[in-house]
Amino acid sequence: MAMSGNMLIVQSGGPTAVINQSLAGAVLEARKQPAIRAIYGAAHGLKGVLEERFIDLRRETKATLEAVAATPAAALGSARKKPTPEECVRVFDILKRHAIRYFFYIGGNDSAESAHLIAENAGRAGYPVACWHIPKTIDNDLRENDHTPGFGSAARFVALALMGDTLDCRALPGVKIDVIMGRHAGFLTAASALARTRPDDGPHLIYLPERPFSLARFAADVEAVVARHGFCVAAVSEGIVDEAGESIAARFTTEVDGHGNAQLSGTGALGDLLARELKARTAITRVRADTFGYLQRSFPAVVSPADAREARRVGIEAVRLAVKKGGSGTVVIRRKPGRAYGVVYQPRPLAAVAKETRRMPDAFIAESGCEVTPACLAYLRPLVGPLPRLGRLKGVPVKQETLA
Amino acid sequence: MAMSGNMLIVQSGGPTAVINQSLAGAVLEARKQPAIRAIYGAAHGLKGVLEERFIDLRRETKATLEAVAATPAAALGSARKKPTPEECVRVFDILKRHAIRYFFYIGGNDSAESAHLIAENAGRAGYPVACWHIPKTIDNDLRENDHTPGFGSAARFVALALMGDTLDCRALPGVKIDVIMGRHAGFLTAASALARTRPDDGPHLIYLPERPFSLARFAADVEAVVARHGFCVAAVSEGIVDEAGESIAARFTTEVDGHGNAQLSGTGALGDLLARELKARTAITRVRADTFGYLQRSFPAVVSPADAREARRVGIEAVRLAVKKGGSGTVVIRRKPGRAYGVVYQPRPLAAVAKETRRMPDAFIAESGCEVTPACLAYLRPLVGPLPRLGRLKGVPVKQETLA
Repeated sequence: MAMSGNMLIVQSGGPTAVINQSLAGAVLEARKQPAIRAIYGAAHGLKGVLEERFIDLRRETKATLEAVAATPAAALGSARKKPTPEECVRVFDILKRHAIRYFFYIGGNDSAESAHLIAENAGRAGYPVACWHIPKTIDNDLRENDHTPGFGSAARFVALALMGDTLDCRALPGVKIDVIMGRHAGFLTAASALARTRPDDGPHLIYLPERPFSLARFAADVEAVVARHGFCVAAVSEGIVDEAGESIAARFTTEVDGHGNAQLSGTGALGDLLARELKARTAITRVRADTFGYLQRSFPAVVSPADAREARRVGIEAVRLAVKKGGSGTVVIRRKPGRAYGVVYQPRPLAAVAKETRRMPDAFIAESGCEVTPACLAYLRPLVGPLPRLGRLKGVPVKQETLA
Repeated sequence: MAMSGNMLIVQSGGPTAVINQSLAGAVLEARKQPAIRAIYGAAHGLKGVLEERFIDLRRETKATLEAVAATPAAALGSARKKPTPEECVRVFDILKRHAIRYFFYIGGNDSAESAHLIAENAGRAGYPVACWHIPKTIDNDLRENDHTPGFGSAARFVALALMGDTLDCRALPGVKIDVIMGRHAGFLTAASALARTRPDDGPHLIYLPERPFSLARFAADVEAVVARHGFCVAAVSEGIVDEAGESIAARFTTEVDGHGNAQLSGTGALGDLLARELKARTAITRVRADTFGYLQRSFPAVVSPADAREARRVGIEAVRLAVKKGGSGTVVIRRKPGRAYGVVYQPRPLAAVAKETRRMPDAFIAESGCEVTPACLAYLRPLVGPLPRLGRLKGVPVKQETLA
């Protein structure tokens, strides 16, 4: 029989377009569970837990929760905070004092690690708390998951942006560098490849954190594309590293978060460096760089239908698993085999997704190192959803003799 | 009776989400006009005219033209080229040699100037060419127009981006600086204000090229907003100038186009400068800057319905006016008086929109200089179209005594 008690839910790490789907899914499911009494949400992740800043999620109407579900960014507020050992003890005391038996942590690998630390504490202290992690990250780098909620919508934004950007650069030719999020994993940058509908469409070059990046090689690659197509669109991950494995973007920052991650986003420095180097190393004059930044994860009205659906379901599943099994864990998304796209949701231990992240598999990266494989495209397509069809003129040239 | 002859159409300047609506409108209307024989499109603006690179637009199906109309960026290709006096003579020779009696130039103020130069040449040479300009610019800075095709869709992108970005910055508090296009006019940056749905929503500060920008004042403004709301989102035009009227972004560039305009977009330098200065001048630690860049003008699937409709109509009207009146001119958009939104299309001389641009009227800028007025919002709203409704939790705090 399920433990009876209160529930606390938090959102953590970088917001996404669908993280509120998981919140709404968990809260609406919790309301159906007789074992769950009060339903609290903490403001700004672990920070709000430590400050005991809770809101009453039973006081929200279903209509509000549905509207919030369709709204990007973390409705409860988020934080990038790793608890110290002392804070883990304090969190546990707070959970106990408020009769919280169900604790849900929506976030990525760092959040899973925090949840793991808290769960271990609860285990040692003999006060059972069901402590479940609900996956979320646009980086798509959680281990054990086929893909993660938030990724599909961010990937959709990237694919749409590259569709437009390729057309823009084709219209006013030159070189366009697009810097895309993804600290260690190239999935989001790889999604740029979905923008192509014709052989000469961009992105013509895709640089991923999984392969070493060299400025000399980059300049040569771009020159070759320009020679061939007359313009070049390059998709570059913010996480690209040099031959020594050092982050190139991190050269420009001294800022690190609570988990020791350097700030890579929210600056155009990497794109500007690449543009500058390209102008210095080649004869190309028109070079532009855009850094997509936070728009990738928070732009309203660009949501992948599968992503929204799955983000909702992991919230629901986490509550069901917590009530049914207690203990701790995470919900992972596995893809069903077969041609038609489908997924299953499975419980896994927190340790299986905490701390370390995963990267793009080698099978998704072409031998050149600056291209993705057909297997990668097949993997990505259902996650992003159908993209708009673009029109293109047939462009029958007028013969000069007709003109003369 | 209308002159009988061939037609040539070009697209010029920065692409927009709806510039192909104008192309499709003009071509489909031209096909209905018995006076117009061959319909040619030149590749890459004036460059393609001078190189006689024409495509046959009668060979395009209606379905292709409709698909192209709904596709961002310039389908014919664009250019930023101001003709020299010699080139004006050459263009005129080319028009004459190819029996072109109808010449259409889709573009902004620089394009109107080029069209004006060509029309003057035709006038002097005694070979009549109807030479009409079709307005287009996301900057919304064409004189005589209430607003310009391309602006509404770019403004819609900016408003949506700010909606998401405010939520993102509220979730992970700090300061967010968003750099928005607009060389001399603040209209596009002003459109960020449409993102607000509640009193504490961002953008909290709006910096326009129409008012001098001071780093010291900026830092003080941001500090005041952070003290009040706990976070701050600032929308900053790429065109901001210092007290001396010098462009701040232009300090970072040496690149100018054919019309003498400095390159402001395609770099994150201005945003990064502002973020750096803010960190240096205040105690605020989390400061992020995004430069929206080319996404503003080329993102597919973000189109204002009014903008698409009007961009189509100015193309149609230009062809009708050219056939009916010959000569030269531009089509301007005027707003009908009254509560319900509506526009009329009127012919005006090329000189009325060429060269000089317009800026935001004083009535649209609040006294503080970093805010827009209700009149500005009322002006912008119908141009952008209905925005999605965002959800927000009621957020009833759990009383500490309940918890204890």
